[in-house]
Amino acid sequence: MNSFDFALLNTDDHCAARRGRITTRRGTIETPVFMPVGTQGTVKAMLPEALRELGAEIILGNTYHLFLRPGHELVRKLGGLHAFMNWDRPILTDSGGFQVFSLGKLRKISEEGVRFQSHLDGSAHVLTPESSIAIQEALGADIIMAFDECIPYPASRDYVAASTERSSRWARRCREARREGDGAALFGIVQGGMHADLRARSVEDLLETGFEGYAVGGLSVGEEASLMYEVMDCTLPLLPADRPRYVMGVGTPENLMEGVSRGVDMFDCVMPTRNARNGVLFTSFGKVSIKQARFAEDPRPVDPDCACYVCRNYSRAYLRHLYQGREILASVLNTHHNLHYYLQLMKGARKAIEEGAFIRYKQEFYRRREGCGDKD
Amino acid sequence: MNSFDFALLNTDDHCAARRGRITTRRGTIETPVFMPVGTQGTVKAMLPEALRELGAEIILGNTYHLFLRPGHELVRKLGGLHAFMNWDRPILTDSGGFQVFSLGKLRKISEEGVRFQSHLDGSAHVLTPESSIAIQEALGADIIMAFDECIPYPASRDYVAASTERSSRWARRCREARREGDGAALFGIVQGGMHADLRARSVEDLLETGFEGYAVGGLSVGEEASLMYEVMDCTLPLLPADRPRYVMGVGTPENLMEGVSRGVDMFDCVMPTRNARNGVLFTSFGKVSIKQARFAEDPRPVDPDCACYVCRNYSRAYLRHLYQGREILASVLNTHHNLHYYLQLMKGARKAIEEGAFIRYKQEFYRRREGCGDKD
Repeated sequence: MNSFDFALLNTDDHCAARRGRITTRRGTIETPVFMPVGTQGTVKAMLPEALRELGAEIILGNTYHLFLRPGHELVRKLGGLHAFMNWDRPILTDSGGFQVFSLGKLRKISEEGVRFQSHLDGSAHVLTPESSIAIQEALGADIIMAFDECIPYPASRDYVAASTERSSRWARRCREARREGDGAALFGIVQGGMHADLRARSVEDLLETGFEGYAVGGLSVGEEASLMYEVMDCTLPLLPADRPRYVMGVGTPENLMEGVSRGVDMFDCVMPTRNARNGVLFTSFGKVSIKQARFAEDPRPVDPDCACYVCRNYSRAYLRHLYQGREILASVLNTHHNLHYYLQLMKGARKAIEEGAFIRYKQEFYRRREGCGDKD
Repeated sequence: MNSFDFALLNTDDHCAARRGRITTRRGTIETPVFMPVGTQGTVKAMLPEALRELGAEIILGNTYHLFLRPGHELVRKLGGLHAFMNWDRPILTDSGGFQVFSLGKLRKISEEGVRFQSHLDGSAHVLTPESSIAIQEALGADIIMAFDECIPYPASRDYVAASTERSSRWARRCREARREGDGAALFGIVQGGMHADLRARSVEDLLETGFEGYAVGGLSVGEEASLMYEVMDCTLPLLPADRPRYVMGVGTPENLMEGVSRGVDMFDCVMPTRNARNGVLFTSFGKVSIKQARFAEDPRPVDPDCACYVCRNYSRAYLRHLYQGREILASVLNTHHNLHYYLQLMKGARKAIEEGAFIRYKQEFYRRREGCGDKD
């Protein structure tokens, strides 16, 4: 018996935005949802309790990183990733493919899988569809992802076609390797580069194999946002309405709004956490680089309209001071604020969809960014 | 009217340990107390709420650092250090002397004060007794310290004598510069190096000037622990029983136990916080370096006898993993644990003194460190 389920609660009357609920063995996830990224067993600078308070219902773990350090068998021995990192809500793990393919010269692809050298110590490893699934099962994730190649951009049509076909074969091997019955869900990943026909072909292949959910991979790899939206437009309608749709590694607040309006249910991105550590904060009026001298004496909160812990208690001047002093608390507070922003943006989106008002929500989102703040 | 007060609640029957209560305009402090160090407006890696939860009743701020960045006038404008850093309990600021004197070649002492160059940008500054007091008042500390020279060790007797006399004159200038009536307290600092007679002379000078509390400075500067205790032994009995006694920059858990047994009321040290960031954890059985390979698969908490948030929720294996991965959470969790250790150690000391059992408490403290853990 599989405890994974997706319920489509309602769709917006005026666009493709959907309001749903994913049920996992570790609780439910209201969609559309943003998943904070916890690369190596921690969402950088965040206590799990703080993530909960912010309303994070699911986080993402990175198979590649955890495989190399501390190792999935160690994590399994210590009770799985949830126990290891003190997080009892759902976890989604990626397949490791994205990171491995990012290694460039350090990796070699074959039909079997990918040979690569660790970025940590140069040691040689192999990831295959089968081992990726085994690792993710050892980690104990609630949603695991098929092993695929995230195709770079730009790439020749021939390369994209061949790679996508191989990813389809790998997806089938993942499905077969999957140990059923433990209640975790396996998602397939649509590839096909920026070509509508190859995307359609990829969807067909994946549907034939059958997955609990479907991701759109290979986006946010350097293409223009408009091209990303085109690919969403040609891919998302092909996916079954009764399964969750996840656009991987996306993105900016704008990307999220556009994705939701096109019917995306799940997103993940390092942007709110990584930008936070670099002093870049998200606000209702756009991005703010807190290191700027103009904030040195600014007693206002980062975003006067924000109700988060940081905005309730700290001034821009203090946050700038912490950043200039390279204080750990700078990363802690900035990450808290940025994740609050992302999670609230999605909470607002869910409410708007329920009210059939997502278009208005999106318009208001853009309107408030006009003419102030830094531009994306 | 001065709202600062010190009440001696009781002394241990079998040693000089004292149980007291300091009243400040921002609340009371139970002594003996350990004060976490918040160098530049943050106790590194700690949220103020976490400090409160750990029972921290007072923290220390560094005048030198805050003077240079963000500047005391800016802090004043933003409502003072408490508002700036979101900490509403008492703050003690040092005088800046210790840091300035640590600058070595970058500083020059005269009767007037100290000329120095910023370690940040080389800019030239002067600190005098008067400016140190003005800065501390601008920061809004509840306990401020006289400007003195922290004498290096070893030093010639002549140097120590001359420096100590100058520090006495500076202490008088601090007293005169002090703006009375705002409820903050000014503490004098005993110098005199490792010489009993010069220490006694320093105490005399300070008593003549008169302060709300008395600190013993110039310890933990490289001398043997036994010499530190000798200086405490010859200095502390000379101080008035009805005023708080603060040994500055001290120290290890052992130093704290020895200081308490000699009648010290207040301590501060970067050791728990700095060690935490270097992966060194304090436990009931001694110090533990969490990076060691033997902890890689260790499912136990850092200290099985510790009830802190970290020990309740995380394994040694996880903490080692975070440290190896240079994760921010490593510093957050390690600091939390170490401050919990220090604050609980002092809480236990206070209880033991109330029960006239501090000697037993100290013996038990040493007994548990025998034969296990890393040695200090």
